[in-house]
Amino acid sequence: MEQELIERFREIVGAKYAITDQTLITPYLLEERGIFHGRTPLLLRPSSPQEISLIMQLASQTRTPIVPQGGNTGLVGGQQPDERGESVLLSMERLNKIRAINLEGSFVVVEAGVILQDLQKKVDESGRFFPLSLASEGSCQIGGNLSSNAGGTAVLAYGNMRDLCLGLEVVLPDGRLLDDLRFVKKDNSGYDLKNLFIGAEGTLGIITAAVLKIFPKMKAKAIALVGLHSPENALEFLSLAQEYGGGMVTGFELMGNLSFQMALDYKMCEKSPFEQKHEWYVLMNISSLQGNDEAFSVLSIILEKALKRAVIEDAIVAQSLKQQHFFWQLREAISSAQKLAGGSIKHDIAVPLASIPDFIAKAALIVEDVAPGARVVCFGHMGDGNLHYNVTQPIGADTTAFLQLWSKMNHRIHRLVMDYQGAFSAEHGIGQLKREELRSFKSPVALDIMRGIKKTLDPLGIMNPGKVL
Amino acid sequence: MEQELIERFREIVGAKYAITDQTLITPYLLEERGIFHGRTPLLLRPSSPQEISLIMQLASQTRTPIVPQGGNTGLVGGQQPDERGESVLLSMERLNKIRAINLEGSFVVVEAGVILQDLQKKVDESGRFFPLSLASEGSCQIGGNLSSNAGGTAVLAYGNMRDLCLGLEVVLPDGRLLDDLRFVKKDNSGYDLKNLFIGAEGTLGIITAAVLKIFPKMKAKAIALVGLHSPENALEFLSLAQEYGGGMVTGFELMGNLSFQMALDYKMCEKSPFEQKHEWYVLMNISSLQGNDEAFSVLSIILEKALKRAVIEDAIVAQSLKQQHFFWQLREAISSAQKLAGGSIKHDIAVPLASIPDFIAKAALIVEDVAPGARVVCFGHMGDGNLHYNVTQPIGADTTAFLQLWSKMNHRIHRLVMDYQGAFSAEHGIGQLKREELRSFKSPVALDIMRGIKKTLDPLGIMNPGKVL
Repeated sequence: MEQELIERFREIVGAKYAITDQTLITPYLLEERGIFHGRTPLLLRPSSPQEISLIMQLASQTRTPIVPQGGNTGLVGGQQPDERGESVLLSMERLNKIRAINLEGSFVVVEAGVILQDLQKKVDESGRFFPLSLASEGSCQIGGNLSSNAGGTAVLAYGNMRDLCLGLEVVLPDGRLLDDLRFVKKDNSGYDLKNLFIGAEGTLGIITAAVLKIFPKMKAKAIALVGLHSPENALEFLSLAQEYGGGMVTGFELMGNLSFQMALDYKMCEKSPFEQKHEWYVLMNISSLQGNDEAFSVLSIILEKALKRAVIEDAIVAQSLKQQHFFWQLREAISSAQKLAGGSIKHDIAVPLASIPDFIAKAALIVEDVAPGARVVCFGHMGDGNLHYNVTQPIGADTTAFLQLWSKMNHRIHRLVMDYQGAFSAEHGIGQLKREELRSFKSPVALDIMRGIKKTLDPLGIMNPGKVL
Repeated sequence: MEQELIERFREIVGAKYAITDQTLITPYLLEERGIFHGRTPLLLRPSSPQEISLIMQLASQTRTPIVPQGGNTGLVGGQQPDERGESVLLSMERLNKIRAINLEGSFVVVEAGVILQDLQKKVDESGRFFPLSLASEGSCQIGGNLSSNAGGTAVLAYGNMRDLCLGLEVVLPDGRLLDDLRFVKKDNSGYDLKNLFIGAEGTLGIITAAVLKIFPKMKAKAIALVGLHSPENALEFLSLAQEYGGGMVTGFELMGNLSFQMALDYKMCEKSPFEQKHEWYVLMNISSLQGNDEAFSVLSIILEKALKRAVIEDAIVAQSLKQQHFFWQLREAISSAQKLAGGSIKHDIAVPLASIPDFIAKAALIVEDVAPGARVVCFGHMGDGNLHYNVTQPIGADTTAFLQLWSKMNHRIHRLVMDYQGAFSAEHGIGQLKREELRSFKSPVALDIMRGIKKTLDPLGIMNPGKVL
């Protein structure tokens, strides 16, 4: 990149926030799974939509590719520049203002660089609740959550980021600012633009701010860890829970016995809270606006009915906030725990609920066929049909050789998922990692429309190139 | 239209379903408010997506405009051809199959021509609940509900049609079939196409089928009719209801005293159920998955707290299913009742909840300025900030002269709405009626993106021309 161009970008954000020193840039180029190794000559850290607007105007004039980045927690390489080193990396971290918390209207206005956990805390302090919750909440940013249409553990009761968003502010690839910040739930004045940018992984424009819904705070929570025999039973149990708990069922996470055991080991628990081992485990949250009595009474009704009908084998109701917290820590520890067991090939899939048992049975055969002896670590947001169906290398196997099976394994598992008309990327997006899968599994008509939209909004192709399409 | 072209369309759907007899066509050209008087030489009644695909292929080849029509209950003329008589009218009524009801996955697959009430009934018979509910549910169709992103009375708890839809099947303007029927809640594989077609009022393609969410059936409902003093109080009451009822608050309708009185008169009630008159009324539903005890207990808690804090003046809890039904009939009767009082200028607006009292006060001044003596009939889905702010002619005034104030009144009320960053079309859409308003109030950047999308998907401009854009 020519020095003159770097100077022109520098003028927009100020010398301090236009970084060319590679030692300072490096942390922005490292990502969680270590799969992508991008390069960039220039990192920009703008502080406002107006600066981003100027950046995009200059980028358009000079056809400079721009890669926006939030908290850099994405798992598919969407936030990383490619290896050619021609893209400018644009960190959103300085757009970190919560512009408004409106209690009567039940919404907040937040900038893209606000860290999810900071937003959760501020909303909590205001007496309300912002439901989005995921393992990386301490560092991921709202802009990234929107661009990847983040899901997580609260989707069951509150929906994903798309459902939580009322409106957006976006800088378009040509630098124009789209002010589509809406404060009402109902607005049928023209095409829905918001949902184009949500989940587009920064390929259509840069989300700079959003209006997000907030909710009444639950007064109490009752949590049970449940042991059961099969995915079929887990499905029946979910159905029962929703019949008697409805919207009070705010979490329903499935864990295979291996996931559960790995999490116990990782948390250094010498023994399981259960007397016996079970094939499958469910972590269930029941939340109440009324208080403890209601939460525990509804939880009891559900557990009693499930035990009576032999849908579940055993259940432990958390007796303290500490124990509640511990149960969730176990669930959140699975990803980290898995790392200790060697290389893992990951899947982030969804299938219709009724197909989960069948999928789990058939996927196991594929795993054994592609990598005999590999260990299935299956867990996830069962209430949404969303499983992180991960495959850990056989004990003692060569990690590099095992990981070379990644594409093959993915492709076969994803083909199975598509047989059920499921999703081969349920919540992590496409990024760089799943572009081939998108071409293989998305309908040609859908791909064609996507390309048309991309061309309309980003005719020069400078907006996060090489991602999604 | 040339006879030869009519013949070619006729060959696709069969002689019986290609109608040129104007006496048979006329009912399709009459709409609720009698504002739009379209013409067409040909009405087609296809029976499948495949036939519609062939129709659109022929329409593309011959550049013939196509106007899709559902139950013909739209209020903005979106489903009506224009007066030039060059468009073919395409009725969706024969695509009326419910393709699947999937209880475990909690979804249904329905064709566009299914009547909303028929779907509600079938889902009810299956032991589940489909929440979309509106005054025209006996004749409106799912395709129209999707194309207009229908709202209604259940949005508060369940969301609008956009929120209820998992996936679509769409015939594009060039005749290609987009199969985007999805059966999972989480799918982040590429741009969101579904939401482009939802709310596009048939200008981007023809929705032929959809996957819609269904819900556990509520076991009991408690309903109260509440009298209160002011919109401020209604707002406080809503906040209180949601604090203690959360998702159990499944209806919260506001009615001004004039709306309420008109409805009582229309239903020929000699006296109000209340001992005293109130300035405002709220109809509130509390639904429970547990049963009557919970529903009535939560309703009591809310009413007691509201009475104690003097947020409400009086409340009548419906004592029987019959009385519950009657309370809702009153609410639903307002539109019909209003017709008997002469001409009305209608608004379908939304403002952020906190701004409702201020809006109501300021809008009254505008009404008095534009049409002195006109009567405000203000009612609507307060929980969503969505009011049908209608203005009935002064007693004894000339209806025609009064209705000539329509545009002027609309424009001033809508400008006020936009001052609050509200919506000038909350749930009815743009159609033909509000195209000028769209040009006035939508941001130029948003309009430009909309035009780009329209051009990408419908380059020949044959898809429901003259609507929205």
